[in-house]
Amino acid sequence: MEKIDNRVTRLFGIRYPIISGGMVWCSGAKLAAAVTNAGGLGLIGAGSLKPDMLREHIAKCRELTKEPFGVNVPLMSPYSKDLMEVIIEEKVPIVFTSAGNPQLWTEILHDNGIKVAHVVSSSKFALKAQQAGVDAVVAEGFEAGGHNGREETTTMVLIPAVKKVLDIPLIAAGGIATGDAMLACLALGAEGVQVGSRFAVCSESSASPEFKTLCTTLKEGDTMLSLKKISPTRLVKNKFFEQVDAAEQSGATKEELQEILGRGKAQQGIFLGDVENGELEIGQVAAIIRDIPTAKKIVDNMISELEQAYKENLKILGIF
Amino acid sequence: MEKIDNRVTRLFGIRYPIISGGMVWCSGAKLAAAVTNAGGLGLIGAGSLKPDMLREHIAKCRELTKEPFGVNVPLMSPYSKDLMEVIIEEKVPIVFTSAGNPQLWTEILHDNGIKVAHVVSSSKFALKAQQAGVDAVVAEGFEAGGHNGREETTTMVLIPAVKKVLDIPLIAAGGIATGDAMLACLALGAEGVQVGSRFAVCSESSASPEFKTLCTTLKEGDTMLSLKKISPTRLVKNKFFEQVDAAEQSGATKEELQEILGRGKAQQGIFLGDVENGELEIGQVAAIIRDIPTAKKIVDNMISELEQAYKENLKILGIF
Repeated sequence: MEKIDNRVTRLFGIRYPIISGGMVWCSGAKLAAAVTNAGGLGLIGAGSLKPDMLREHIAKCRELTKEPFGVNVPLMSPYSKDLMEVIIEEKVPIVFTSAGNPQLWTEILHDNGIKVAHVVSSSKFALKAQQAGVDAVVAEGFEAGGHNGREETTTMVLIPAVKKVLDIPLIAAGGIATGDAMLACLALGAEGVQVGSRFAVCSESSASPEFKTLCTTLKEGDTMLSLKKISPTRLVKNKFFEQVDAAEQSGATKEELQEILGRGKAQQGIFLGDVENGELEIGQVAAIIRDIPTAKKIVDNMISELEQAYKENLKILGIF
Repeated sequence: MEKIDNRVTRLFGIRYPIISGGMVWCSGAKLAAAVTNAGGLGLIGAGSLKPDMLREHIAKCRELTKEPFGVNVPLMSPYSKDLMEVIIEEKVPIVFTSAGNPQLWTEILHDNGIKVAHVVSSSKFALKAQQAGVDAVVAEGFEAGGHNGREETTTMVLIPAVKKVLDIPLIAAGGIATGDAMLACLALGAEGVQVGSRFAVCSESSASPEFKTLCTTLKEGDTMLSLKKISPTRLVKNKFFEQVDAAEQSGATKEELQEILGRGKAQQGIFLGDVENGELEIGQVAAIIRDIPTAKKIVDNMISELEQAYKENLKILGIF
């Protein structure tokens, strides 16, 4: 299939409605450009970047691709204001905001000709994002890696619930690494998918080889939603997780957990490769990720799996 | 659509691959017969029945329908052996086993001409069930109500993972209340769906009016997986839940939790309608359940929604 023509591909000017998530310590210029060049939409994840570094990544991404790419800005970043200024100055065409109030930046970004999508984990916040004027909503389920909603609503339940309240395009996230899951999300009414874990474990991801290799060995149940008293985060059950979990099981306070969490633990684990003592963020779907291909191979596979699942799994419905 | 022809409908001799779960205090003869008469497969839930009561429900179900129905037996029931004897004596054609080792009963049931499906929450146990010789596997995700797997794997991730290891037919469960979600599960490679919450909240369900009405008001985040130190169970966040949760947050032991849990709490809540102090089991998908229709209306709606979602949501793929 050369192209999927729907509201998401038209909005962003892309061929396939496949977006790479803005994952901390994974989604740099290399990954974003590779996904964009493969026909999807690549995002630079600004959650682990200071403003000057973001400017460098944007410049590098421009060298690597002529097609549209975007930046994901977690609004809780201490640098969010400066990051947004860099994005506006550098005329990045697309911004995905998350972890904060979509009213803060949507109008300003629109005034600068920038398309805006906002990430949510409930239909309540999806509606607020639509009311704030965003162009699309990403709804992310409980199975996703990293930061996660308090309601724990899974992708299968969340997408139909969000779909009910939205008129603008809906992008599904959480648990999507294959074309089969992409087809399932389209069936639920999403018009695109945001894919995190699968792109975190690919050649162009900035994550360490140690982290990527570990992810290809994870089984079902090897990640767990943790740190619920601070900010629910899906982590690999490594030594660091065990420490956090033991504290939580024995009733540790928020402050005691903050002390164990410390600083720089995600960088230590994901980027520097200390897979025992670092904080490792990845989704449940790592359980079916067994290789470290290129981003282009991932996009190509997803599209051919989508075609095959449509033809084979839904063949029985072809009588309509 | 008059009929869906696949391995699941052929295995059970039914028109639509829609199975009502064997929910405690909901799935009696009335509900099972109504689902079967609507073209699906109705199950009597033996988890809340003593052997004599099961015999009565089977007899009543036979009065209400001429078509195939089944019984769900949680193998951890203290009466599981006696329940199985009743099933064999009464020549029930289909048994769904759960919460235990599928090797225990599969051969004996087969020797008596009974089809067997087994419920799992991981690909590891799906494979064990296939090796035990069952005819089909039900894989149930984290979003499901009531008892749940320790791995917390969601339906979106679980179905593809289980599909990879199975040759026999796969039935998806957890988060499925509409034809859109049924279509999504077929897209993921399942050949049928087991639907719990939606049928728990219908006219023929044995649950109390108080429980059903409460379920139609639940929002995203109003159920939570609880009792993880005993046996993970998804509960409505009512007064009973708050007690359990407070104990868990402060590090209560398994024994302390057992004491709070007590006995008969699910009967008190679901069947007798004490929605504050009883234990209320329902899935996340209750968040989109707003009415109390008949079982036939539910099956009819699911099939027409399935057709519509296939035609509309997947229209863009019609070019294949």
